Amino acid sequence: MTDPDLLSLKALPTPALLLDEWRMMRNITRLAERATGLGVSLRPHLKTAKSLDVANRVTGGAPGSITVSTLAEAEIFHNAGHSDILYAVGIALQKLERVQALRAQGCDLVVILDNQAQAQAVARANVPALIEIDSDGHRGGLRPDDPVLIQVGRILHDSGCLRGVMTHAGESYTVRGVEAHADFAELERKATVSAAEVLRGAGLSCAVVSVGSTPTAHAARDLTGVTELRAGVYMFFDLVMAGIDVCTPDDIALSVLTTVIGHQPAKGWTMIDAGWMALSRDRGTASQDVDQGYGLVCDENGLVLNDLIVSSANQEHGIVSLRPGADKPMPNLPVGTRLRILPNHACATAAQHDRYNVLQQGGGPMKTWDRFGGW
Amino acid sequence: MTDPDLLSLKALPTPALLLDEWRMMRNITRLAERATGLGVSLRPHLKTAKSLDVANRVTGGAPGSITVSTLAEAEIFHNAGHSDILYAVGIALQKLERVQALRAQGCDLVVILDNQAQAQAVARANVPALIEIDSDGHRGGLRPDDPVLIQVGRILHDSGCLRGVMTHAGESYTVRGVEAHADFAELERKATVSAAEVLRGAGLSCAVVSVGSTPTAHAARDLTGVTELRAGVYMFFDLVMAGIDVCTPDDIALSVLTTVIGHQPAKGWTMIDAGWMALSRDRGTASQDVDQGYGLVCDENGLVLNDLIVSSANQEHGIVSLRPGADKPMPNLPVGTRLRILPNHACATAAQHDRYNVLQQGGGPMKTWDRFGGW
Repeated sequence: MTDPDLLSLKALPTPALLLDEWRMMRNITRLAERATGLGVSLRPHLKTAKSLDVANRVTGGAPGSITVSTLAEAEIFHNAGHSDILYAVGIALQKLERVQALRAQGCDLVVILDNQAQAQAVARANVPALIEIDSDGHRGGLRPDDPVLIQVGRILHDSGCLRGVMTHAGESYTVRGVEAHADFAELERKATVSAAEVLRGAGLSCAVVSVGSTPTAHAARDLTGVTELRAGVYMFFDLVMAGIDVCTPDDIALSVLTTVIGHQPAKGWTMIDAGWMALSRDRGTASQDVDQGYGLVCDENGLVLNDLIVSSANQEHGIVSLRPGADKPMPNLPVGTRLRILPNHACATAAQHDRYNVLQQGGGPMKTWDRFGGW
Repeated sequence: MTDPDLLSLKALPTPALLLDEWRMMRNITRLAERATGLGVSLRPHLKTAKSLDVANRVTGGAPGSITVSTLAEAEIFHNAGHSDILYAVGIALQKLERVQALRAQGCDLVVILDNQAQAQAVARANVPALIEIDSDGHRGGLRPDDPVLIQVGRILHDSGCLRGVMTHAGESYTVRGVEAHADFAELERKATVSAAEVLRGAGLSCAVVSVGSTPTAHAARDLTGVTELRAGVYMFFDLVMAGIDVCTPDDIALSVLTTVIGHQPAKGWTMIDAGWMALSRDRGTASQDVDQGYGLVCDENGLVLNDLIVSSANQEHGIVSLRPGADKPMPNLPVGTRLRILPNHACATAAQHDRYNVLQQGGGPMKTWDRFGGW
């Protein structure tokens, strides 16, 4: 095993996960400035990154408010000094002991829930919670006019555990363009602000009104009544986000370095040593206007080779070919050629790797940042 | 973090990867007996398992002949005593140094290749190789009648590096039933035996004739001329294999334990704490006769709840619902209910986890077996 810290990009074994730090910093700055302009605080979601080094950069160099998707993330980030954490997956009752243990260590860990069984258990455990609101029919949550909202709110309020409401417009990923995303942002705002009004109207506390997804966070025009914004994949971006015009391929900070290992010339196939184990099985662009297969191919320096995609993937093999309808010939990519693959879905691709190989603008020494997984 | 060694299944935090050891042992025995009956040696592929404990069981308790998909696997398994290893992904030239280092430590590590650039580099590095043969148009490899076969063979032979030929009928996964798989097994046999004859006819050595995929290994009727059989996913099996009749759901040894965290009653949705991070993004049954979504739902004891599937998955959320056309009502699954999800693709699901929680028949104490990843 070689220590990538000692290696240049040219010597890095493949497949390997690359992170362009300057692209990431540009993405981080862009959304931070948006949040400031909208008058809300930003609570970045670290489920994509799962890295202390990325966390440090996204919270501006000092511990800040963050969102997580697992208790493993909460434990690791709290251990590194982050003490204001939202665990944004509906709480499983069995996990409350670990939540309590973290809170006893001084972590202000807040959970989310959408039903009475959870509310009763959370109230008994004396853990603060946000009520999940369904703003778009995508997943969990209560509609603002659901009578269960006040029942759940009262259980939490009466035990001092009601912090507020939250929503996530997952359906915003299915539409394209800033106008469509702004509409979903308004759905998020309206649903949560309505729910907060319902709760307050019943005499229940509701300090926090939390909304967000990467598409809506980049499109929202007005967040009146909202207190905080959440987003996650924006720090890296990916082809799914580019496919709905939240970013361009040039904003994508994450890629997989790979090596050409063979060809099937009659079929126009170039074989690479990155299969789904390195790229993930995510096919998020399959339902978009432009299907990017298992990823868009770039040269070793990150220049997009238009119309060249990973059209098929086995566990450790990828097949690179021209996309259907391409009007150029297949480029010459001899055995040994190194390529970069832009991912469909940064969360899924990053999860296949245990480290980021971090590239600095202008070609300074490569850094290695660990990433973690598990629950 | 809790040590699962100390836990019973009832107390295991979710999501978690479960392995039924007795089902795995039944699957291992089944294919070992087939190989003996067919008169070939078995070289199990450990890319699915990536576990020393599974390797130990699949090779009968002593180090044996194995197949791997990464050099990380080769290094870890060799370190544990396995010294007869086929690395069955076309060799990237940059990886030859690590191959040489392992060989210098006494590991008989053999690589595969299908072109002259690879053959020249491998010959210079004095590394033994099998030539990959294309038996079904699925991926890489040379057709037996391709004139490049003899050119590549001669480069290897002249440097003492030609061990033989190998193929993998990946297309066998796309057809259903033992007759169809037997046809692919015969394609594998014919292509490799023909290639071996071409090489031998040119005065080149070809000791090894290696074939295999899980479907063809379970269906082959005659392997005359073949010396060894390879297969990987058979030790665990999965819904993709069940969907093409290589196994039944009762043979599937791998599952993901999960907890119900909420409901959307109007939609017939039950939310669970296993999303694609725990199940993988693999949708291998999407193109089969029965689409199992992101997995088939069982009760906590592993009893299949027919017609209940994970119909949708976010990163840490799954949505359980009845499959289209189900003629039963949605069962009552209160918050806190624990379920098991059978995976579409064992290789992809196992790769999302760092350990197996191993269940013994009859409910003996649960064991924990580590698994590894990386390259």
